[in-house]
Amino acid sequence: MNIVIIGGAGFLGQKLARALVARGRLNGQPVRRITLADVTDPVGIEGAVPVDTVQCDITDPASVARVITDETQVVYHLAAVVSSHAEEAFEEGMQINLHGTLNILERCRALGTAPLLIFTSSLAVYGGEVPDPITEVSLLNPQNSYGTQKAVGELLVNDYARKGYIDGRGVRLPTISIRPGKPNRAASSFMSSILREPLNGQGTNCPVDEDFRHYYLSPRKCVENLIRVAEISAGDLGGNRILQMPGRTLSIRQMIDAMTAVAGPEPARLISWQPEEAVRRIVGGWRFDIHADRALALGLEVDGSFEENVRAYIEDDRPGG
Amino acid sequence: MNIVIIGGAGFLGQKLARALVARGRLNGQPVRRITLADVTDPVGIEGAVPVDTVQCDITDPASVARVITDETQVVYHLAAVVSSHAEEAFEEGMQINLHGTLNILERCRALGTAPLLIFTSSLAVYGGEVPDPITEVSLLNPQNSYGTQKAVGELLVNDYARKGYIDGRGVRLPTISIRPGKPNRAASSFMSSILREPLNGQGTNCPVDEDFRHYYLSPRKCVENLIRVAEISAGDLGGNRILQMPGRTLSIRQMIDAMTAVAGPEPARLISWQPEEAVRRIVGGWRFDIHADRALALGLEVDGSFEENVRAYIEDDRPGG
Repeated sequence: MNIVIIGGAGFLGQKLARALVARGRLNGQPVRRITLADVTDPVGIEGAVPVDTVQCDITDPASVARVITDETQVVYHLAAVVSSHAEEAFEEGMQINLHGTLNILERCRALGTAPLLIFTSSLAVYGGEVPDPITEVSLLNPQNSYGTQKAVGELLVNDYARKGYIDGRGVRLPTISIRPGKPNRAASSFMSSILREPLNGQGTNCPVDEDFRHYYLSPRKCVENLIRVAEISAGDLGGNRILQMPGRTLSIRQMIDAMTAVAGPEPARLISWQPEEAVRRIVGGWRFDIHADRALALGLEVDGSFEENVRAYIEDDRPGG
Repeated sequence: MNIVIIGGAGFLGQKLARALVARGRLNGQPVRRITLADVTDPVGIEGAVPVDTVQCDITDPASVARVITDETQVVYHLAAVVSSHAEEAFEEGMQINLHGTLNILERCRALGTAPLLIFTSSLAVYGGEVPDPITEVSLLNPQNSYGTQKAVGELLVNDYARKGYIDGRGVRLPTISIRPGKPNRAASSFMSSILREPLNGQGTNCPVDEDFRHYYLSPRKCVENLIRVAEISAGDLGGNRILQMPGRTLSIRQMIDAMTAVAGPEPARLISWQPEEAVRRIVGGWRFDIHADRALALGLEVDGSFEENVRAYIEDDRPGG
């Protein structure tokens, strides 16, 4: 089984590749080769499975065609320009998030091999005057360009799957926390920073109030779920190939309390509380009362508690940990 | 006020143009010029307002740029490859319904004048395992490529409007019956043919059972609503610029009874009842329990009865009538 991970330089692509190497199998078949593709050359991974790294510009169909070939059985499409970035740079967001996704779908269609394609969508597809709770039959009413482009991707994945051009699946990821690495241009960046930086002994700012609630999943559980999504039988997915990946709804206060329970009182003292209006405007409309019953019934899983997320960060990702 | 109607050769574009000419005003301003643009040269219209006709290929950005200029205040985008056609000719559907719509949106954005853009969507955005009734907060879960492409158009119209690139509005049209002219490649074509052909003294076939229910509006009321949509103040639309245009849910039997009430018993005898599986497969999943409360509250209207639709056909459209 040859697996291509587009967005393979990102933290999720890297973790997914390491998990697939460690597992050695997907859908009952041995993993023969993993190709990490990204706009910047991804970091390679050592292990029992060969892992290639390759530069790929998904806005260029020829570049996509070099990466996804008739030997590709599985494509994970994780690449995106994130929320704040897509909001500031409208054309770039459209090129990468919409046309890039179309280029990947069109390449898969042209191959005629109906590869398994897993597309990552986002909570940003929700918003506006849609009643709580958000369920799998709620209107997608995105309030930013990133969410719009992800909702478009979902519709296209469903249609290409229905037509038999791909064995498509999409998952709306909860906000991943604690995400390793550095702050990025996602409006949700602080939802990891406020824990990660203090756990690393660094100061950070929380731009929202401590009662701000949102919907979270650990990177570890997210990767497990991304693998599970590939292994659900097509018949069990029915006529809608898009799932809400399950998460937990938590306030900032609950997250900080979990950090304190695991790591003691020092990290929380490194958080300052300066409101940031630009961030508040974007995340203030984000939905958190989200139900993922269908995904849970299909075997996707949620963290047992946010303490687990904090421990997973310390074990898996904390520098020098 | 300069108005461009893309899809201006279609029956709806033609009726809309005639209504705008007769009205002479839109949004409190005089209509100075109407441009009917279509892939085939539209039929011109005589009246007190100059009506230009022009060929336009919306898959070609340069062609779109020649039609939508900085003098264009209003764009009606009615052009589409219809449902059965888009299902058979996937690439053509994508080119016209998705990339064509993108080309129109991108042209409007490039102008910097934020023109008023009215986009026509379709009931085909609904489907699958979404509970009845369908409301304005139901998931769009299209079960064919046409519906997918229309749902994508809706999302983009909303986002371009939110960004201020257009004053965008979208309306999901009920199935228009009685549509004048000839059968087309829409799976819904028979929903007019079974009345139009008998009213014209010709035989026709009904491919579904007489208890098949669907959601209808007359061309006359549809045109009135398309004008009304342009005149709703942006503030009243709130964060979702897409409306379900109101219609009536009727069975085939109710429609035929209405025809008989208006035109006597002869027309109904011209209908044969041979099931057509290809049509049934597509329309069988179409939704009919549809609520359009928001549009009704904003002043859009529904026909008083289907008898009105039959009379409107006889008055407005029946050949030699």
